[in-house]
Amino acid sequence: MNAGKKMLIGLHLGNGYGSQPGAWRMPGVDSKSYTSFDARVKQAQAAERGKLQFIFLPDGPGAIMADIETESPGFNLDVMLTLAAVARETEYIGLVATGSTTFNEPFNLARQSKALDIMSHGRAGWNAITSSGEDVAANYGKRIPSGEERYGRAHEVVQIIQALWGSWGKDAWVHDKETGQFAHKDQIIPINLQGKFVGSRGPLYIPPSEQGQPIIFHAGGSPNAYELAGRFANAVIGAAFTIEDARAQRNAFREAAKRFGREPDEIKYIPGLMTTIEKDRRTALDRRIQLTEHLFPQRVAYLQQMLGIPLDIKRLDEPLSKVQLDAARPSRYDPRSPHALQIAKQGWSLRDILAHGVIDYHPVIVGPGIEAADHMQAWFEAGAADGFWISPDVNSDGIDAFVDEVVPILQERRLFHQDYEGKTLREHLGVPDQYGIDPRVEELKYKTN
Amino acid sequence: MNAGKKMLIGLHLGNGYGSQPGAWRMPGVDSKSYTSFDARVKQAQAAERGKLQFIFLPDGPGAIMADIETESPGFNLDVMLTLAAVARETEYIGLVATGSTTFNEPFNLARQSKALDIMSHGRAGWNAITSSGEDVAANYGKRIPSGEERYGRAHEVVQIIQALWGSWGKDAWVHDKETGQFAHKDQIIPINLQGKFVGSRGPLYIPPSEQGQPIIFHAGGSPNAYELAGRFANAVIGAAFTIEDARAQRNAFREAAKRFGREPDEIKYIPGLMTTIEKDRRTALDRRIQLTEHLFPQRVAYLQQMLGIPLDIKRLDEPLSKVQLDAARPSRYDPRSPHALQIAKQGWSLRDILAHGVIDYHPVIVGPGIEAADHMQAWFEAGAADGFWISPDVNSDGIDAFVDEVVPILQERRLFHQDYEGKTLREHLGVPDQYGIDPRVEELKYKTN
Repeated sequence: MNAGKKMLIGLHLGNGYGSQPGAWRMPGVDSKSYTSFDARVKQAQAAERGKLQFIFLPDGPGAIMADIETESPGFNLDVMLTLAAVARETEYIGLVATGSTTFNEPFNLARQSKALDIMSHGRAGWNAITSSGEDVAANYGKRIPSGEERYGRAHEVVQIIQALWGSWGKDAWVHDKETGQFAHKDQIIPINLQGKFVGSRGPLYIPPSEQGQPIIFHAGGSPNAYELAGRFANAVIGAAFTIEDARAQRNAFREAAKRFGREPDEIKYIPGLMTTIEKDRRTALDRRIQLTEHLFPQRVAYLQQMLGIPLDIKRLDEPLSKVQLDAARPSRYDPRSPHALQIAKQGWSLRDILAHGVIDYHPVIVGPGIEAADHMQAWFEAGAADGFWISPDVNSDGIDAFVDEVVPILQERRLFHQDYEGKTLREHLGVPDQYGIDPRVEELKYKTN
Repeated sequence: MNAGKKMLIGLHLGNGYGSQPGAWRMPGVDSKSYTSFDARVKQAQAAERGKLQFIFLPDGPGAIMADIETESPGFNLDVMLTLAAVARETEYIGLVATGSTTFNEPFNLARQSKALDIMSHGRAGWNAITSSGEDVAANYGKRIPSGEERYGRAHEVVQIIQALWGSWGKDAWVHDKETGQFAHKDQIIPINLQGKFVGSRGPLYIPPSEQGQPIIFHAGGSPNAYELAGRFANAVIGAAFTIEDARAQRNAFREAAKRFGREPDEIKYIPGLMTTIEKDRRTALDRRIQLTEHLFPQRVAYLQQMLGIPLDIKRLDEPLSKVQLDAARPSRYDPRSPHALQIAKQGWSLRDILAHGVIDYHPVIVGPGIEAADHMQAWFEAGAADGFWISPDVNSDGIDAFVDEVVPILQERRLFHQDYEGKTLREHLGVPDQYGIDPRVEELKYKTN
């Protein structure tokens, strides 16, 4: 399966430090990276050196976190300004920003993402999400709408944005000094779309980019997400802890695409992978301990629930006893539990069990590069993933570690490309260029003006 | 008057070509500048070489213009992305983006403008305007609200944005690796503001910049504009054709500031000036002719109304006759009319009268640098302006012409600074740094949550 196919790899670029709590305090890390656009640019350049297809910026914007006394917020100051800086100082890597369909005007979002597409010469993607947190809504002085309303609006916003992106035809912009023709007016078309929630007349001011227009990503795993992505997305930012779950999600997105008359391969399913890459497992575990040990008291408490047995925070140095291991039952409420028990049975100390990242947001590799490569190959070949978005523990050296220790192995195994196939995100993802207005938006009511 | 004071100068940075129709077709101009961020960066760098205090980006976003067949749209693809590129590749010049309070969520606008302030190390300004065109509203699927509603919302949006900007106290961000303290949580304060039109809980994620937070500009000349600017603005992007009108506007803004308990000098009134700078008047006129001659038929028709006499498009080479000049009466409906008649009476041909820019959006200098310097000195010393925003005819060489031919004269006359006084926009404008939440926002109803 996947014979000859190559996997895609994206880099998660968040708060500038990395995905692990404590990353901002690590040796060699500039503790001011949170406000440093230089740091983001350098990190994106490291990913580009590794030929990664895209960087991916999640976004809230929810409440400031409760642990702000000791931890950085998780997001970028602003995703579009971050990608603008990166666009100017990289040449190949794709630039995918998250933007909520719930609390943005489609015209504003369409304009800024298309401008980024121009600025980056065809490397922009938009991760279209709905906002579901009351803390996000509160920042807009509102309450969160129902799921039906949020996804109803999302379907309208995506169609309006795609139409605005396509409101200049492929050859609309002439800029011919000899003839004095700036543009073909008849190829710059108002979209006149009006849905139940949002509308726009358009057109945008912006001609096509080198890839026509940006690509749509989606993140989520609900039936609503399958439907939105099935209609519009070319890639899904996924989250799954097991091959089985990932494969089920991937198939659900592929089936959804088919329901909307698309080829299943038009949606790439890309789950997350968190990495702590060092020369050996021991060194990697020690690095994770340095990063997260301050959280171990609360994590021991949670691990008790995952394994269904009492654990003693004072015995961090000791492996679990035979009695404990025999009594342990993986919690059915947390899909990470079987893996946690498996690690425990390998005889690691309680501290090292936690250092394996058994409680984290995505599968975690703590070890040499080959372990990450093996994980990725297994998932890829099992039809559980078209690629991965990588979330290094500490960006300042964790991106380089992935690029230097994992990428070459994947390339050697012919699982990852040797170089960029082109210069646009559509080329990187094998998605055809898109120009003009998708005829399928005709289902949206047209205004009579 | 103004003894020892220096004038401020800003550069209008619009579509990348310059302010004159036809600029995109001029020799030496890259006809693709409309989508070129390189071009904008180069132009901003030219202004920085001239020690200009800021660049100013107007914005709509209204309908695509009717003359798109032959002319570029007037605006930037996106003002924030343009300024992001400029921020990364300049060091001193202030960055002022227009953003509408009518069709933006305050949280989004606050976040992006504050992120720009961080990115530029304290050089951001926000030109807070209301949108009044139905063509703008249509891009949002809406109708334009009444003036009362628009300005009511604007007052709320500005207060919420200022509060969000100030939601991290001056010393809130600690980032101390030794102690492990990232921030002082008690100095990061939700704003909990809710007005009649908009609200936000906050806080933002963003610590203070080198100037604390961005500066507020306003553009407009109505009683509503005086009130909004009088409360909040540190600078006004003005439009006036005569010293008398400019002085009256400037005084109105200063009086408005006083009504809100501020010092009049806290508002800088900055009218526009359009420039075609060449070594002599004749060369400059020929340049304007090259730029705008294709519009002369419609301009002759309009000039007839301004002067109240019939004019013959076939006699472009001839001065107005004595009979015509004796019969001419400046229209009271167009404040540019007396100046147009004055130029006509100097004996210029009809073509040259038009080439003087007697029909344009702001006063126009067509001639050697000293004429621009004289104009600026006269207005400045008459209390009609605290500075000027310059709108060159063609950016690719018009900015350099201003910098090389006008700035040195103003410096020699001690009317313009020799160098930047500091590195932030507040330093450039003599506005104190601002931290925390302005106590005056307490008038907005606080939410009970």
